[in-house]
Amino acid sequence: MKVVETIKDIREAIKGLQLEGKKVAFVPTMGALHGGHLSLFRLAKKHADEVVVSIYVNPEQFGPTEDFGSYPRTLERDLEFCEQEGISVVFTPSDEIMYGIGKKFMSIEIEELNAYLDGGSRPGYFQGIVLVVNKLFNIVQPNVAVFGQKDYQQFQIINQMVKEFNHDLSLVMAPIERADDGLALSSRNAYLSNEERKKAPLMYQKMKQAVNKIQNGLLVPKFLLEEQQQELEAKGFKNDYLNVFSMDRMAPVSQLKKGETYLIAGAVYLGKTRLIDNIIFEC
Amino acid sequence: MKVVETIKDIREAIKGLQLEGKKVAFVPTMGALHGGHLSLFRLAKKHADEVVVSIYVNPEQFGPTEDFGSYPRTLERDLEFCEQEGISVVFTPSDEIMYGIGKKFMSIEIEELNAYLDGGSRPGYFQGIVLVVNKLFNIVQPNVAVFGQKDYQQFQIINQMVKEFNHDLSLVMAPIERADDGLALSSRNAYLSNEERKKAPLMYQKMKQAVNKIQNGLLVPKFLLEEQQQELEAKGFKNDYLNVFSMDRMAPVSQLKKGETYLIAGAVYLGKTRLIDNIIFEC
Repeated sequence: MKVVETIKDIREAIKGLQLEGKKVAFVPTMGALHGGHLSLFRLAKKHADEVVVSIYVNPEQFGPTEDFGSYPRTLERDLEFCEQEGISVVFTPSDEIMYGIGKKFMSIEIEELNAYLDGGSRPGYFQGIVLVVNKLFNIVQPNVAVFGQKDYQQFQIINQMVKEFNHDLSLVMAPIERADDGLALSSRNAYLSNEERKKAPLMYQKMKQAVNKIQNGLLVPKFLLEEQQQELEAKGFKNDYLNVFSMDRMAPVSQLKKGETYLIAGAVYLGKTRLIDNIIFEC
Repeated sequence: MKVVETIKDIREAIKGLQLEGKKVAFVPTMGALHGGHLSLFRLAKKHADEVVVSIYVNPEQFGPTEDFGSYPRTLERDLEFCEQEGISVVFTPSDEIMYGIGKKFMSIEIEELNAYLDGGSRPGYFQGIVLVVNKLFNIVQPNVAVFGQKDYQQFQIINQMVKEFNHDLSLVMAPIERADDGLALSSRNAYLSNEERKKAPLMYQKMKQAVNKIQNGLLVPKFLLEEQQQELEAKGFKNDYLNVFSMDRMAPVSQLKKGETYLIAGAVYLGKTRLIDNIIFEC
C-alpha cells in the first residue's frame, strides 16, 4: 500500500494503475475509519480493480462553532485499517497542499438542493464539501467514486456536481452500515458517553416506525413526526429535523403519494454530539 | 482530422492519443476562426504533439442584450481552417450536449477578479466562461490549454480556476495577433463597416502612446487616459473603459511604480461592435 501526500505523487500512482488498464475506485474520507467505511471500501472493490482512499479533515466544511478542532484524528490506526482492507493507495494531503495556494477567488454555489436537511442547518457545509470533492476528483481522477447513503444529501449534491461539471467518473452509493442495535455507524459516535450511546438508536427506531405507518397509508405524516420529535426530546435528544424529503430536490414533502420513493431523514443532538440518519423507502 | 460531437467520442479520441504517449493541447474557441486563432493553434502545437479545438458558441457567457444570436457562425469554413492547420480533433458539441441535463443547481462564483474590465461591464460574463471552460476541461482532459492574451482577464480568471480546482493541465497564453494597421484580430471585427474598420486601430494607438508616456515617467496616467478617451469619443468611438490594471488582481491602479508590470486595457464600441484590446508593459 502506498501512502502519498503530494498531488504529484497521487497522480503518478493513479495514472500508473490506469495505464496498466486498472479501473480505480476512490473513497474520500475524513479518517477516523469505522465499519461504515469498511463497507464503502468493499463496495468500491466490487466496482474497480484498485481502491484509493483519501484521508483529509476538510476545514472548509466545518462551521465556526462546529467540531473541526476536536474531530477524531486517528491516522496510524486508519492506515492499518486500509492496509488490512487491501487499499492500494492512501492520499493524506496537508492543508497546505489542499488550500495553500494563496487567496481564494472562486466558490461553488448550490441552489435549492442545500436548502433543507444538513444544508439548512449548517450554512456553508455543502459549499465546503463540493469545494473539496471537486478538487479531489481533479487531483485523483478516479474512474469510480463511492459515497455513503448516510449523507444522502451529500450524495445527491455531488451527483449533481458530477453531471454539471462533467467529471469523468461514475458515482456509487453505499448503503448505511449499522451497529447491532440499529445505530448508524459514524466517526462522531466516538463522542458519545455510555449512556448517550445506549439511547442513540432511538432516532432510527422512530424513523422505522414512521416508514411503517406511512407504508400502511399515513400519507400526511406531519403530526406523527412531531409526536416522535417530542418523544425524542423527552428522552434527552435535542431535535434538529425529522421529516420526509423528495429524493431529487431534497425538499420536505407534506402529502406523500403511493408508489413514490422518499427519504426520511433526521438530525439530533445527544449532548454535544450531532447524529444524522435516514431511510429511503417506497410509499 | 476527426470531428466529434459527443462527450463519449471526444473522450475516446483524446484518451486514444494520450495512451499512445501523445501530449494533447486544447484550444477552446467560439468558431469564426481568424488569424488570431491560427496563432493559438501554432503555439499549441509547440507545447504538445496533438492539438484539439472546440467550436462552441457558449450561450451562458452572453448577456440578454448581447450578440449571441448574431455572433458569426462559420462552421464549414472553420473546419477547413482546422484541417489546414493540422488540428487532430475538433469537438463541436450541441447546446443539448453541453447543457441539456435538466435544471442547473450549481454555479461558480468569482470574487474580485471580475470586478473591473469586461467583468465589470458584462455581468455574468465570466461566470458563463468559467462554467463552460470547467466543463470543457473535464470533458476533454487535455495536458495543455491555450488562451489568448487579448482576453487577459479571462486568462487570469481561468488560471485561478485551474489552481483552485486543481485541473490537471498547464495553461499557455498566446500573444495578441494584429492586422498590419495594429487592430487586434477578433471574430467581432466582421461586424465593422468599412469606415469603422478604418477607425478601429485608434484605440490601440492610444494605448501604445499611453504606455510610452508612462514608461517615460508619467506614473499617474489618469488625466492622459481621460484625454485619450475624449479623443476617441470625438472620432466616433463610445468608450467603455481605458485604464491601467494590476496583473494579478485585475484592479485599476492610479499610482504606478517603476519596475512593476501592468496591463493597460480598453473596451470601446464602434457602432454596435464592441472591441477590446490590451498591452502588458513594464513601467
